[in-house]
Amino acid sequence: MTPRTGDTAAPRPRRGPGRPRQDEADSGPGTMERIRLAARSEFAARGYDKTSLRGIAKTAGVDASLIHHYFGSKDELFADTIELSLEPALLVPQILGAGPDGIGERLVRSFLGIWENPVGRAPLLAVIRSALTHEAAARVLRDLVLRRLLERVADELNVPDPTFRAELAASHLVGIAVLRYVVQVEPLASADPDHIIELVAPTLQRYLTEG
Amino acid sequence: MTPRTGDTAAPRPRRGPGRPRQDEADSGPGTMERIRLAARSEFAARGYDKTSLRGIAKTAGVDASLIHHYFGSKDELFADTIELSLEPALLVPQILGAGPDGIGERLVRSFLGIWENPVGRAPLLAVIRSALTHEAAARVLRDLVLRRLLERVADELNVPDPTFRAELAASHLVGIAVLRYVVQVEPLASADPDHIIELVAPTLQRYLTEG
Repeated sequence: MTPRTGDTAAPRPRRGPGRPRQDEADSGPGTMERIRLAARSEFAARGYDKTSLRGIAKTAGVDASLIHHYFGSKDELFADTIELSLEPALLVPQILGAGPDGIGERLVRSFLGIWENPVGRAPLLAVIRSALTHEAAARVLRDLVLRRLLERVADELNVPDPTFRAELAASHLVGIAVLRYVVQVEPLASADPDHIIELVAPTLQRYLTEG
Repeated sequence: MTPRTGDTAAPRPRRGPGRPRQDEADSGPGTMERIRLAARSEFAARGYDKTSLRGIAKTAGVDASLIHHYFGSKDELFADTIELSLEPALLVPQILGAGPDGIGERLVRSFLGIWENPVGRAPLLAVIRSALTHEAAARVLRDLVLRRLLERVADELNVPDPTFRAELAASHLVGIAVLRYVVQVEPLASADPDHIIELVAPTLQRYLTEG
């Protein structure tokens, strides 16, 4: 139904930051990056439901048909956007892979580090908001992103039900993000990150390492 | 600006379930209960943003001006709806008040009990969804509901920073609700509640009782 259908789709090359060359203004990797950045900004500002491909096209300065051409449906573009935003979180398996000593602290510290940076926060907020309000967005997060991320984490754990344990740890972190950064309930919203880390690290340590 | 302004507002009596008397069809407590039920159902189905007083009036079978008369603004009606939905959660201080032994387990068990009941789940989902997507809804949740609830919990705790400790416990429970009931990530979504309780209870116990 869409131009992007599995193995028959054209490869989607990435290029580093920089201004698009003139001959890329309406096609090629420069256009794709502009669409990606516009999508991230639109999804972050409006959430899944209120974001339209037309609005993204306008922000990116391209024709909407190009978005269909490169990314397929709105769902597919959203999945691409989440992956782009969650790249720092993909470091989690490396954090865990450094060994069991102190992984609870490394995990909560890196998680808060991503959220304390406003540039990283906006797209993550958009992901949480969208997944909570739109089943298609929840499906993308659940089936595409979380499953892959949590299974990579689980691979590093030596406990019973490793995926379940990883999800319990993730649930605590997600809940902290919701109350601290979204609802902004005090005193949690203004608490020193080290104070949170001190109390939460032993919890994650237990979930991820103790049988 | 609204008919409900503090001490000058008319009292809002509650009555038990039952059919409204004929003379209450367009005024009085029967109408208020119909509006409340319609509001809960509309907010649950559509979230804060997409719910209109006009839609609630239509569902309740009353004129929209009556909603303004009894409840004031949409924000005020939403606050009333949250309080109605969170009544079971107001039992939390009683759970805590029973003493420190086993409060971690009693807390997570009662929380999951509310969510496992689909009738209780829908309005709580609406609260979470709305608070995450609409600042006015987040403000109502933060300043009206959570502050009151968490301070009642904190009053029962004998630890440093009791409100902060209560919020950490709440964050874990909120995150479990998000991943289990909203995003529905497996295996957490299908896990036996007792399995969750077994692992989470010691965490809450530590936050709420250990200095």
